[in-house]
Parts: sequence; C-alpha cells; structure tokens
Amino acid sequence: MVSPLILGLDADDTLWENQARFDTAQAKLRDLLSPWVEGKVVDETLLNIERNNVKLYGYGVKSFTLSSIQAAVELTNREITADLTTAIIESGWWIIKHPVEILPGVAETLKILSSNHQLLLITKGDPADQYKKINASGLSHYFRGIEVVQEKDPNTYLELLERHNVDVKDFVMVGNSVPSDILPILSIQGRAIHIPHHSTWGHEQVDESVVASFNFPVIESFSQLPDILATFSEN
Amino acid sequence: MVSPLILGLDADDTLWENQARFDTAQAKLRDLLSPWVEGKVVDETLLNIERNNVKLYGYGVKSFTLSSIQAAVELTNREITADLTTAIIESGWWIIKHPVEILPGVAETLKILSSNHQLLLITKGDPADQYKKINASGLSHYFRGIEVVQEKDPNTYLELLERHNVDVKDFVMVGNSVPSDILPILSIQGRAIHIPHHSTWGHEQVDESVVASFNFPVIESFSQLPDILATFSEN
Repeated sequence: MVSPLILGLDADDTLWENQARFDTAQAKLRDLLSPWVEGKVVDETLLNIERNNVKLYGYGVKSFTLSSIQAAVELTNREITADLTTAIIESGWWIIKHPVEILPGVAETLKILSSNHQLLLITKGDPADQYKKINASGLSHYFRGIEVVQEKDPNTYLELLERHNVDVKDFVMVGNSVPSDILPILSIQGRAIHIPHHSTWGHEQVDESVVASFNFPVIESFSQLPDILATFSEN
Repeated sequence: MVSPLILGLDADDTLWENQARFDTAQAKLRDLLSPWVEGKVVDETLLNIERNNVKLYGYGVKSFTLSSIQAAVELTNREITADLTTAIIESGWWIIKHPVEILPGVAETLKILSSNHQLLLITKGDPADQYKKINASGLSHYFRGIEVVQEKDPNTYLELLERHNVDVKDFVMVGNSVPSDILPILSIQGRAIHIPHHSTWGHEQVDESVVASFNFPVIESFSQLPDILATFSEN
C-alpha cells in the first residue's frame, strides 16, 4: 500500500555533497589572502559580505565568487592582483565542474522510498548550479516534482504544496538545514526530519536555544528514513 | 467569449527594458578599459567570454559581472586594479537596483489581453534577477503562470506547455528575441509573434538568412497585439 505521506527532500548536503566544495574554495581563499590577514578574518569578512549580497545576488557559486572577489579587494588593502582575481574565478569554476558525489546509502534508499511515497525534490539556490547537479546525479527519475526555489520560507513551501496538490498534513520535509528544511515546515504545521551534515554554511547556522524549543526527529543517515517514516505512518 | 488561445509572453525587452541596462554597463566597461584597448575590442572580447561562460554560469547580472571582470583581467594585460574591479562589481549592482521600466502600452494592453486569454510569463535568466523584476513590475497578477527557465529551447517549451496543460496548437508566443521566443516555437508547430526591440544582445542575434526562411508576424509595439491576435483567432 502506498503511504499517503508525501516526502520533500532537500538536495545539497542531503542527497549529495555540496558545502564541502565551498569549504575547500574558502580554504583556498584563506591561503591566497594569507600574506595580508589571518584565516579567521577572511571567514568573518566573507560571511558578512555574503549576508549583504544574498539580497542582491541570491545563493550559489556565482554569488560566492563575486563575494570572494569583494573580500579580496577589501582584505588586500586594495592590492588585489590579476593572479588573485583569476585564482578566485577558477575556484568557482572548480566548484561548478566538480562531479556530483552522492552521499552513502542515498541511491538505494531513494529506490525504496519512491516505491512507497511520492517524492518532491526541494532545493534552494542558483538554478544554473542546481539543474546541472540534478541532471548529473542520475536520481531525477525518482521525483514526481523538482523545485528550485529562491528562499525556503513558509510561504514558498505553502505555495509549492498547493501547486502540487499536497495537504501539509500529509507532508514530511527531510533535510540537513534547520532554518531551511525544518523550522519553516513546523511553522505551517507540517512534519520534518533532520539529517545533520558534517559541514554547514555559516549563513544556515541557528541558535541552539531556538532549536531546543522545537521537537523534531533527528537521524544520522539517509538510510534510516524508511524506518523512521514507518513510525510516522502509524500516527 | 474567452479565446482558446493561450499567450506566452517574454519579459525582458518585451514587457520592460532590460538590454539597455546591460548596454550602459558595457559602455562603462569600455570607458574603464579605454587606457588599454579600443571599445570594439572590449565588445568582442566580452562577447566571446560570455559565450563560453554561459554554459557554466547561465544568464543574468552575476554572469555578466564575472565575465566583465575576466575581460578586464585579459585586456589590461593583467594590470587590473582594485578600483577597476570595484567599478565593475558596482556596475552590476547598478543593473540589479535599477527600477523596472515598463515599455509603452504594456500595462494597458495586458489588461485587455488578460480578459480574453490565459497568459503565461516565460522568461529566461537568473531567477534572482527575474523574480525581483516581476515583483517590482506590479504586473504579475495578469499571469496564470510564471516560468523562469534556463534556456528557451523546444524541449523547455514542450515541457512547460505539458505542465500547464496547454496544447501547442492553442499557443502563441510573443517576444523580442528570434532565437529564444520565435524559432523554437515554430519548430514545435506553435505560433509566434515577434516584437523587435531597439537593443538586442549579441548572443541573441541570428543570421538574416535563417530568419528569412520562416514566416511569422512582426509588429512594432506591444499595443498592436490584440488586433493581430484577432486575425489569429479567425484561423
């Protein structure tokens, strides 16, 4: 029997590695700027610039590259060179061209899940980046719908659930980001399952006290999803 | 009586000014690089870089900004300075922050069209840029659907028409770009109306001989749409 539960699955760092690529590029930037400032200053400056730029640029590799160039202008006391600029641009290319690395257990588990549930892939970011990864992953056929959204806020979720004719009571969102995949869903009376990932972008980190006031299941790996969903269906 | 014809409307340079902003930013780039090379060389180099980068970056302001920085590195013989880099980044911000300027007659005509047809807004590009403009335009309520796509190729159109339950026989696409708004629609046996715009991006220009082999109506302004569509309905 197909469960009426519809699953929303985040992609970056839930189905495949993503943040680790940006972490590598950011380590490279710290290296490039080490003649001028300490790594800690690079991280802080870049995060501040990214926070400001997200309103203008949205998320993704191009946004990260432009913010990195801006950080380099600022932190080199305007001594930025052509070599430095080119290295930063190439670092962005490296992220874009990096093969998709599917997380352990994901492919097998998607096969099981898709025979029992309708699946929606719901990811935030730059569609140029996202569709490239979705196509390269070879996993897109498991999904009834693929949604690349600008922001994962409650209104975005409500709008897309309505468009897919899904009652939020029957919806379970699964992902690695508490502010993007979990809290907005709880706020619209949906259910959510958190699968933490080893690397989380500074912009996606939330205060522990905020998280503690909510109650949602946390599992260690994607492979545990069918078991935990079986307990959901009994509700 | 509501006509069964469903209209697809392009946005940039069909509903509002767009290319003119990029032209201004490109003129600024020619100015900035004038100590090194002639304007013509800037235009040619930038177009080549953009053509290569579109596969990695997609379209839009961030893509344009990164390509401009790359052109500046190349054309200054790697003497690019912080001031030059900052000026290019700010040129991109200027495009993003520029108020949406709706083309003459568009608002009135959309009101007429939307009472007789279902309208889909179909635009290519960076969703961060596009949704900002769509929201700022105040025109989004005229549309039954809004689609920001990566490429306007025949498959993209077929996929979105199927999703919106539109038979291509009942579909008319309207836009300023022959390769994006007209030719792919004709290739899937749909109909299309061309409204040329004073400024067209180099990447969107097509060979005259290609165009001459196809037959599609060309009108001078958006306000002429209801009249020409009246002749379509009689078919």
